[in-house]
Amino acid sequence: MLRVCNHPMRLGILGGGQLGRMLALAGYPLGMRAMVLDPAPEPCAAQVCEHRLGEFDDYRALYDLARSCDVVTYEFENVPVESARWLADRVPVFPPPRALEVAQDRLVEKRFLQELGVPVPPFAAVDNRPQLDSALREIGLPAVLKTRRFGYDGKGQQVLNSAADVEPAWTTLGGRPLILEAFVPFDREVSLIAVRGRDGSTVFYALTENQHCQGMLFQSRAPLTDTAEELTERAQEYTTRVLDALDYVGVLAIEWFQDGGQLLVNEMAPRVHNSGHWTIEGAVTSQFENHVRAVFGLPLGSSKVCGYVGLINLIGSHPPLPAMLAVPTARVHTYGKVPRPRRKIGHVTFVAATAEEREANMTAWLDRFPPEADGSRQEPQP
Amino acid sequence: MLRVCNHPMRLGILGGGQLGRMLALAGYPLGMRAMVLDPAPEPCAAQVCEHRLGEFDDYRALYDLARSCDVVTYEFENVPVESARWLADRVPVFPPPRALEVAQDRLVEKRFLQELGVPVPPFAAVDNRPQLDSALREIGLPAVLKTRRFGYDGKGQQVLNSAADVEPAWTTLGGRPLILEAFVPFDREVSLIAVRGRDGSTVFYALTENQHCQGMLFQSRAPLTDTAEELTERAQEYTTRVLDALDYVGVLAIEWFQDGGQLLVNEMAPRVHNSGHWTIEGAVTSQFENHVRAVFGLPLGSSKVCGYVGLINLIGSHPPLPAMLAVPTARVHTYGKVPRPRRKIGHVTFVAATAEEREANMTAWLDRFPPEADGSRQEPQP
Repeated sequence: MLRVCNHPMRLGILGGGQLGRMLALAGYPLGMRAMVLDPAPEPCAAQVCEHRLGEFDDYRALYDLARSCDVVTYEFENVPVESARWLADRVPVFPPPRALEVAQDRLVEKRFLQELGVPVPPFAAVDNRPQLDSALREIGLPAVLKTRRFGYDGKGQQVLNSAADVEPAWTTLGGRPLILEAFVPFDREVSLIAVRGRDGSTVFYALTENQHCQGMLFQSRAPLTDTAEELTERAQEYTTRVLDALDYVGVLAIEWFQDGGQLLVNEMAPRVHNSGHWTIEGAVTSQFENHVRAVFGLPLGSSKVCGYVGLINLIGSHPPLPAMLAVPTARVHTYGKVPRPRRKIGHVTFVAATAEEREANMTAWLDRFPPEADGSRQEPQP
Repeated sequence: MLRVCNHPMRLGILGGGQLGRMLALAGYPLGMRAMVLDPAPEPCAAQVCEHRLGEFDDYRALYDLARSCDVVTYEFENVPVESARWLADRVPVFPPPRALEVAQDRLVEKRFLQELGVPVPPFAAVDNRPQLDSALREIGLPAVLKTRRFGYDGKGQQVLNSAADVEPAWTTLGGRPLILEAFVPFDREVSLIAVRGRDGSTVFYALTENQHCQGMLFQSRAPLTDTAEELTERAQEYTTRVLDALDYVGVLAIEWFQDGGQLLVNEMAPRVHNSGHWTIEGAVTSQFENHVRAVFGLPLGSSKVCGYVGLINLIGSHPPLPAMLAVPTARVHTYGKVPRPRRKIGHVTFVAATAEEREANMTAWLDRFPPEADGSRQEPQP
């Protein structure tokens, strides 16, 4: 029961969080079964599929995954590249481990993009205090000092607005490999989610506008209702360079700073992405289904958007389930995670016939369930 | 892992087929976990949730279900009523066992509907050979002789067109409690799927047109594009009588013969229904999600239809997965079942902006993948 062995389409997933959970759920209607590898005893994906308890560098666990699965993928980018490579010698691993390697180091990623002619904000490597000073002279202020590795949801970042911010930022982050990036002016943040199949065929989802709160994605909207076409083409063209350079397979998400007609990469994620959760109800084929289609070498599904779609993350805690389900326009997704401040524990999707209706629905939700200033909520979980 | 214990919303399901499977999948985003009770060692729902192996009258198994779950429901109507009643003394059971009792005996069902003033075809009980002759005199020909219990997908039925058909039908079916029903003329078969919450609130899905093949549902379409409004109101009014009389909770499906403006009940099913599978993509809230919302006492979701929707069942076998997924308009659902003639092993949904587009999509699918005359297909499963 719920064992993946002897099943024709077995998907191994490194990581057992909500992304792994939603990948497993998307695979079931296609006849797939998933096994997640995760060091946590009760990762939320383990509620919906098989779980192999183990660290990502536990080669016995990796061996079990390789032996039990037909394809292996990952749901977050901080898996050791060596583990992905070791697996790739034994079982097909998609996206390619090289994508993991590029995406998990901000400096490697920026240099890689720069070589492809994909615009990125000015940046400089910072490995010690003198390098920080020279980087500041080169980049100027404002700037953002970031760890090169293991940053997510705004963690491992310090904004430098004035010279007075430099020393505290160094105290917090110094001693690890860092990168200083110019704090570029931008109108908004957008993301493009692409899927590339094993045969090189590619589909793109609608360019999505994202609003962050304290470094965490809070709201997304698609499609853009202004100046979208030219911008979309540009984003698709840049993204195609990345996909082709990596001989990529699966979902790739790229977050951009948009300043007028200009796009600069903020970061890329070689996996399904929070800003694409709206595709479950808002697109003909979800990013999750298209990712599993891609890694199994199956034809990709249509990424067409079904109206005007909005997404609100449930962060820290969520209102009681009956209250959420009483909102007729809301499509509620909880992840089975224990509420904790600054933790993504669910999301809500709104699909409307017009952009105005979408805004009205999202506003009504936020009026009814205002998020706390710290990103959590007062209400207890039901 | 994948155990339902200690989880706040645990759903027990009597039966582990595709309906239980899709109920379990619908419950996950709401934070539920399901456990199916099924006597088969590998029912297809066991691929996606916990499975308690046991007969439906195995009281140790029923006890485990009652102890492990907060609510118990069923995915097919041939569960022993005594088991449902025994469970209902220990844990909330929805729909109410009385609904099961009514629906699992064609004679009891017809008498129940008749008392409510809900029109049914003329019928008569047939317990022995002399009763068959008097029933034939009363009902006339053509007529259908059916077993009162355990019939599904056209099994346990014999059509009597002429006097010559009577003896062979009796040879096949005689010795069991039977019912003779008039073979009523009808334009088409339609079904109405209703959901009633614990608080009595009710939503209806769009009236659905069904085409059967050899007694099995083959195609469904919603909404009706002709004369629908008055007919819909009539069907909703009759269905409300049934829901109220049973103090019903959950999804109830009623199949009707439509003859002009007249509706006669063919049969009712106290569960999610094949003719409502289109609601997964074709309605704001699927019948599966609304059923779990209802039985847990949660607010019901919108049943609004999202365009013009069609459903084609995959019976016996299905085309290779890559071929099916290459059809951009098809939303493919496989059930993880072993192909076998006359077995429902999946379905495909089409959602279109117009009725014409829906027809074109369905026709293209059937042209590409013509079903065999016996309801199975030539192509091997991939």
